[in-house]
Amino acid sequence: ADAVPEDSLWPLPQWVRTYPRQLQLAPSRFQLVHGAGSSAGPGCGLLQDDAFRRYYEYMFGHSLRRTWGRRPLAARGEPELFQLQVVIEAGDPGCDGHPQLTSSEAYHLTVTEPVAVLKAPEVWGALRGKPMLFTLNSLFRFLVNESEINDFPRFAHRGVLLDTSRHYLPLKSILTNLDAMAFNKFNVLHWHIVDDQSFPYQSIYFPELSDKGAYSSNLIYTPTDVRLVIEYARLRGIRVIPEFDTPGHTQSWGKGQKDLLTPCYSGEQPTGSFGPVNPVWNTTYDFMATFFKEISSVFPDEFIHLGGDEVDFSCWKSNPEVKQFMKKQGFGIDYAKLESYYVQNILDIVSSYNKGQMVWQEVFDHKAQLKPDTIVQVWMANNYAHELSSVTGAGYTAVLSAPWYLDYISYGQDWKKYYTVEPLNFPGSEKQKKLLIGGEACLWGEFVDATNLTPRLWPRASAVGERLWSSSNVTNLQDAYKRLTNHRCRMLRRGIAAEPVFVGYCAHEARGP
Amino acid sequence: ADAVPEDSLWPLPQWVRTYPRQLQLAPSRFQLVHGAGSSAGPGCGLLQDDAFRRYYEYMFGHSLRRTWGRRPLAARGEPELFQLQVVIEAGDPGCDGHPQLTSSEAYHLTVTEPVAVLKAPEVWGALRGKPMLFTLNSLFRFLVNESEINDFPRFAHRGVLLDTSRHYLPLKSILTNLDAMAFNKFNVLHWHIVDDQSFPYQSIYFPELSDKGAYSSNLIYTPTDVRLVIEYARLRGIRVIPEFDTPGHTQSWGKGQKDLLTPCYSGEQPTGSFGPVNPVWNTTYDFMATFFKEISSVFPDEFIHLGGDEVDFSCWKSNPEVKQFMKKQGFGIDYAKLESYYVQNILDIVSSYNKGQMVWQEVFDHKAQLKPDTIVQVWMANNYAHELSSVTGAGYTAVLSAPWYLDYISYGQDWKKYYTVEPLNFPGSEKQKKLLIGGEACLWGEFVDATNLTPRLWPRASAVGERLWSSSNVTNLQDAYKRLTNHRCRMLRRGIAAEPVFVGYCAHEARGP
Repeated sequence: ADAVPEDSLWPLPQWVRTYPRQLQLAPSRFQLVHGAGSSAGPGCGLLQDDAFRRYYEYMFGHSLRRTWGRRPLAARGEPELFQLQVVIEAGDPGCDGHPQLTSSEAYHLTVTEPVAVLKAPEVWGALRGKPMLFTLNSLFRFLVNESEINDFPRFAHRGVLLDTSRHYLPLKSILTNLDAMAFNKFNVLHWHIVDDQSFPYQSIYFPELSDKGAYSSNLIYTPTDVRLVIEYARLRGIRVIPEFDTPGHTQSWGKGQKDLLTPCYSGEQPTGSFGPVNPVWNTTYDFMATFFKEISSVFPDEFIHLGGDEVDFSCWKSNPEVKQFMKKQGFGIDYAKLESYYVQNILDIVSSYNKGQMVWQEVFDHKAQLKPDTIVQVWMANNYAHELSSVTGAGYTAVLSAPWYLDYISYGQDWKKYYTVEPLNFPGSEKQKKLLIGGEACLWGEFVDATNLTPRLWPRASAVGERLWSSSNVTNLQDAYKRLTNHRCRMLRRGIAAEPVFVGYCAHEARGP
Repeated sequence: ADAVPEDSLWPLPQWVRTYPRQLQLAPSRFQLVHGAGSSAGPGCGLLQDDAFRRYYEYMFGHSLRRTWGRRPLAARGEPELFQLQVVIEAGDPGCDGHPQLTSSEAYHLTVTEPVAVLKAPEVWGALRGKPMLFTLNSLFRFLVNESEINDFPRFAHRGVLLDTSRHYLPLKSILTNLDAMAFNKFNVLHWHIVDDQSFPYQSIYFPELSDKGAYSSNLIYTPTDVRLVIEYARLRGIRVIPEFDTPGHTQSWGKGQKDLLTPCYSGEQPTGSFGPVNPVWNTTYDFMATFFKEISSVFPDEFIHLGGDEVDFSCWKSNPEVKQFMKKQGFGIDYAKLESYYVQNILDIVSSYNKGQMVWQEVFDHKAQLKPDTIVQVWMANNYAHELSSVTGAGYTAVLSAPWYLDYISYGQDWKKYYTVEPLNFPGSEKQKKLLIGGEACLWGEFVDATNLTPRLWPRASAVGERLWSSSNVTNLQDAYKRLTNHRCRMLRRGIAAEPVFVGYCAHEARGP
């Protein structure tokens, strides 16, 4: 065999058994069908139209002419595998819905003559399980071993953060990245869509935000673009959580929305510069209420990320109106209290639209009153285990990204560093451990745009992907190296320009650049 | 103006003056012609066919339809620039020759109404100067300021090392890189073509070397490929120096050439492993004489790089025949002497083919008897100033690459680290300083292939390019930042997927991936 299947499974399933008997697949006859008893049928676009066809092409696409023509099926002795039957077990298959934090991604795949059966409680599990048949299938041969996989994710939230403010990312880069995420069983695109540098999100209510705050009038995401990203993600079982980070990281907001940011002062005089969002005016909250009403409706996910990191207090401290407000509220000189006051207001606004919230860890650290279901994202590298302990100890849900800032590049095989993180290795009770629902690989955009996004992120993020999906005892680096190397070649074959893990080559090399 | 010309010159010319008066260029009328008194004429393919057309396209290509249609020339007031006259001053223009270490790359460009004149002693200077007119030309307007440039390189050897052994690089990647090199006035491609991992060079005399030593039968460079690389480089004024590194770094040679490598022993028994090239057998030198005869004829450059770095003595030490030979030669247990013995033989072979030699610094350090014109490449990061001092103190020519190992990536704007190197900052006389003829940006291939080559190398190598071309007093980092940022956008416009320097955007963004 050209490739031993187990050598290339990534992320490793919870349970796999492979038998020696091999079955052959005839591209001209092999069918993907809905099995008996499935709640999903031909009307299930999520399974039928897109995802079925896509993997079928990955599997048979380029090699169809090259290989198949030369090997007549009749000449071969192996029994034939005719079908993959997909059975969705839930009463409502949810084919038109969006994936959620609570969605089941479990699946059970058996490959035996004459049919393979993929069972999943929900369609999202079927999306995760379907490619496995084509992964088990040997690389350049239409053969698959009889096998059985029982699989489910260890963590429910497995995200990749992309930053489209420091550099604009063309739609194609985002969609390609969603493909790569699906190949690695990630299920959350954390879209850090705006920041100080630019505001590429084209708002329906406030078009001036991108008219004046985007880098350029053509470097924006229109409502159509955003819908496309969300649908492309949905078809791959990926949630899109938008982040609109306030009150800091908002310089670009100020260009299109007057009187939103805090004017900074030097003594009695405004300097002409602006600081974070102005927390003392009612107009700020009126604006935010309208803005987040739009966001709540544009983005279907249950959660919105509200940011809240790295608020610089110096401008607030310089502003007479802010100082007066501090006095009135009895905040003394504790500007963290002012920050919490602001964040609280935003949290209340967003809650009123029935959205759950994600926030960066400072919002928790500065003691804002959080809704019990708020998700706190732990990002500071320094002693993040302690922070996980505190956040979950206070009863909040946590997502870990501190050890997975993939924008911090270094020489060599740094995937090992990301791979050897054990997320649950923090002090806390069983109950606390349950509150850590996953993690995110973050690729901040200061030095990343369409020229280098894909090879910089992949396959380094794959290490995070396996850590979050596979069992905690999947930790053998030598075995992971072999599988990751093969997995990277598979990504390349599927059109993802993932960089090499180390020296060597792939059977199907990149043509580049 | 959309772009101030001086903001985007890279590498900065030795002398530039720009005048306020602007001239317009009409793409339909503007001509590139040979000036009166030029030794080159229409028969000079180097200037006419390729290079002229290429820059004309860079200049007018994509914007022709977009911009020009909307701005009728008649409606504009500026006087028109009709021609660029190119004058080659040397008696023999050398249009069919190859660039050499001693070639002149100086040029003098004056842009005044109604014609611009580019004078250069040799065609190679004209190649360097011609793009400058199109660089002075504003980005999206067909306007150029009256100006004068007098320019020449500070160092004669300005190289980029590519490694096609650790990963195969498709021809397209190499050619694209030659384009990028030309945009940065590099003039040497140091082609580290083979190494331990693979032997992609298809030899005419010894085809088994790549048949058995390449990663795969399609991952090779045929004689046609090699000729194409050399000619593509020549048309851009770039020399191709091939490196065939021996006696170490040769594992892949052993696959196709029996009895070339040293069998390693454990006690009395061969282990089945092999070490460096076997220095004790005559057959080794017979093979090398034939092999380097081929290389000397395939590669037209005056120099061949013979490697000689990182020789591991442990296998030699284990081999009884080698030990006996050591005794016979009176080398005692000093295996550096054996290494020098080997290298000496290879140097003599290559000298007999009238080729100059480049070697890595160990060959000098281990006291091989070098020809006086040997070029020693200093690569070890530890106290390289001292090494430069020793090499030039012994009267040898040196090339510096120690501070420019661009495969060692790190977070942030590491171009500044490469930029702030002052190559002549080593102890030595004026005469010694003259012996440092340049440097090389090295991109070793352990973690680099077609997926990430371009954005990893550019614009980081541009920092090295300016250091080696421009005057030693061009050191202002703020100014360099601005110019490099613009220069990177220009590379992007010309089809080089150079990564971003920092946050921001280009007028013409990458579409990628």
